[in-house]
Amino acid sequence: MTKKVLVLPGDGIGPEIVEQAVRVLDAVNDAFSLGIEHESALVGGSAYDETGSPLPKATLAKAKVADAILLGAVGGPKWDGLDMAVRPEKGLLGLRSNLELFSNLRPAILYPQLADASSLKPEIVAGLDILIVRELTGGIYFGQPRGIRTLENGEREGFNTYVYSESEIRRIARSAFEAARQRGKRVCSIDKSNVLEVTVLWKEVMEEVAKEYPDVELTHMLVDNAAMQLVKAPKQFDVMVTGNMFGDILSDAAAMLTGSIGMLPSASLNAEGRGMYEPCHGSAPDIAGQGVANPLATILSVAMMLRYSLAAKPAADAIEAAVSKVLDQGLRTSDIASEGCTTVSTQAMGDAVLAAL
Amino acid sequence: MTKKVLVLPGDGIGPEIVEQAVRVLDAVNDAFSLGIEHESALVGGSAYDETGSPLPKATLAKAKVADAILLGAVGGPKWDGLDMAVRPEKGLLGLRSNLELFSNLRPAILYPQLADASSLKPEIVAGLDILIVRELTGGIYFGQPRGIRTLENGEREGFNTYVYSESEIRRIARSAFEAARQRGKRVCSIDKSNVLEVTVLWKEVMEEVAKEYPDVELTHMLVDNAAMQLVKAPKQFDVMVTGNMFGDILSDAAAMLTGSIGMLPSASLNAEGRGMYEPCHGSAPDIAGQGVANPLATILSVAMMLRYSLAAKPAADAIEAAVSKVLDQGLRTSDIASEGCTTVSTQAMGDAVLAAL
Ligand SMILES: CC(C)[C@H](C(=O)O)[C@@H](O)C(=O)O
Ligand SMILES: CC(C)[C@H](C(=O)O)[C@@H](O)C(=O)O
Repeated sequence: MTKKVLVLPGDGIGPEIVEQAVRVLDAVNDAFSLGIEHESALVGGSAYDETGSPLPKATLAKAKVADAILLGAVGGPKWDGLDMAVRPEKGLLGLRSNLELFSNLRPAILYPQLADASSLKPEIVAGLDILIVRELTGGIYFGQPRGIRTLENGEREGFNTYVYSESEIRRIARSAFEAARQRGKRVCSIDKSNVLEVTVLWKEVMEEVAKEYPDVELTHMLVDNAAMQLVKAPKQFDVMVTGNMFGDILSDAAAMLTGSIGMLPSASLNAEGRGMYEPCHGSAPDIAGQGVANPLATILSVAMMLRYSLAAKPAADAIEAAVSKVLDQGLRTSDIASEGCTTVSTQAMGDAVLAAL
Repeated sequence: MTKKVLVLPGDGIGPEIVEQAVRVLDAVNDAFSLGIEHESALVGGSAYDETGSPLPKATLAKAKVADAILLGAVGGPKWDGLDMAVRPEKGLLGLRSNLELFSNLRPAILYPQLADASSLKPEIVAGLDILIVRELTGGIYFGQPRGIRTLENGEREGFNTYVYSESEIRRIARSAFEAARQRGKRVCSIDKSNVLEVTVLWKEVMEEVAKEYPDVELTHMLVDNAAMQLVKAPKQFDVMVTGNMFGDILSDAAAMLTGSIGMLPSASLNAEGRGMYEPCHGSAPDIAGQGVANPLATILSVAMMLRYSLAAKPAADAIEAAVSKVLDQGLRTSDIASEGCTTVSTQAMGDAVLAAL
């Protein structure tokens, strides 16, 4: 049976890195006879430029029937002045919400070959391997009402609504506990329950779900403390679970601890395990078009996709081994450049992974 | 003319560290004939235990007539089960909001004597000196409506409101630009304007206020990127300005970069320059009562208080010099313990600062 992958290059460095990832996908597709078919579609700023919408109907229709989606990145200063409703990010948020991709898995792993790349001292980060589970289709990102209104005294006021229901919390809790079961069996739930009522409910539901997983330990931490602990002693964590907004901030901080955010893939899954896969980093408009971006996070996102959504574990393993091999060979894109290593282009990095497969 | 200082020891390690800070205050009061009178009052969990309220009326009345307030810390697991309305944190938030202490200044400074304490590599943090200006009386901390409600389908939903008006943004913007004028003349405003409407308005008003300060440079950064940049290259910042929630998270992360959060004071000021002064760290219930907490952040908060609210700059300078001297002497509380230095108790650290004055 053929499997359909939708490829969404997006904006900035998106097209460059996705190009290399698709070459890798094609190679394992042949080698392992996976029967994967893929097609591309527009999303984000480039979709807006061509169609006036950051998430054209045709793209959404294709996304809905795909077995998996590979996304590059969206956004850039070019579209900053636009109304919120047509901003590139709206395309990404629209995909997440329309496909109910509520469970966002963001690993923060220190690659032994890149141990020097971190800004943290080696003893603090060596061997770091944490997983942030971020709720992706609720919270303040999607809460209503929202907007900018004019008050009686004539001044304007901006407002957004932070909201979570029990069922939304329950399903992301289960995602986190399931993931922890495959790892270190510890979940740390992040909230701000000393100030925000939403997160009082969050904490309560986490406790309730924890009863279904007696083999997994649940602890709680306030978000400000979590931001501190990530800097001070990140290895204390196994799985961290949190809402959309806190997850956005903490997962980026955690990824950066490794010094190699250009290496980190992510998965956004729905209840049926269908998913969208993308690098943890953004569209990096400052280096777009120069052929220097690191394609490895996107290539590793292909591996995650093969493993989680396409039941092709051997192909996933092969890609991850190939990436490890090119790192062993001393090849580095400029974001992870290091003394004694060879700095290569986006394309050359893709070539090397293909050769190592 | 006498000046009135209200002392609020609070919970956890609060009373221990405040005791040492008050000894220092008394010493400079005598030495510099400052005419300061101080009295204590209850706030937080200890206030709740005695009076049933985390901010008793008597405390608020005294706070309103004080020239400055010195606070230890509030909160602890003992009070976690309580209803939000009577939680210790409510006492702190009540003070901030009743006294309109909208401008929270949180420096993150690496003390040269403590260069080793940071988890970051020396080349990343050496000489770090950034100031986070956090809006403290608005945003999602105070937004209405808020609470937990039951939906039609019977499940519960938690909700909070993130809100800022133009005038609230304008006054914190001015605080940040004024502070930047005294420093590196650069303000970086942190928002999430690609998703949240409140912060679209935030960004707009920042630009508007920037026109009043042509000598100060304004840039913008998304909050997720800011969390990354703090880890990657914190020295790129001079003044960062942001809302209450983002400021809570980022200022704690920034403080922890220095490895010596036990050293960092903070000021919360109103429009007239009256203020509340407190350490950046929390009530640390795990070490409360053991006499090992670091009193230096609270002692340095006294220095900030003398400088900003009590027009006693020479006394402030004297305290800061004394703190620097005890660090030079190699005295350290256990949070900043280091090979070759002497680990001392809270009280012994207080003694040493007094002796060095
Ligand atoms: C582009 C933006 C809307 C998005 C988010 O905030 O979720 C990004 O930062 C991410 O983390 O995937
Ligand atoms: C205790 C808590 C309410 C408080 C806050 O979130 O503002 C604290 O974390 C702080 O930063 O002063």
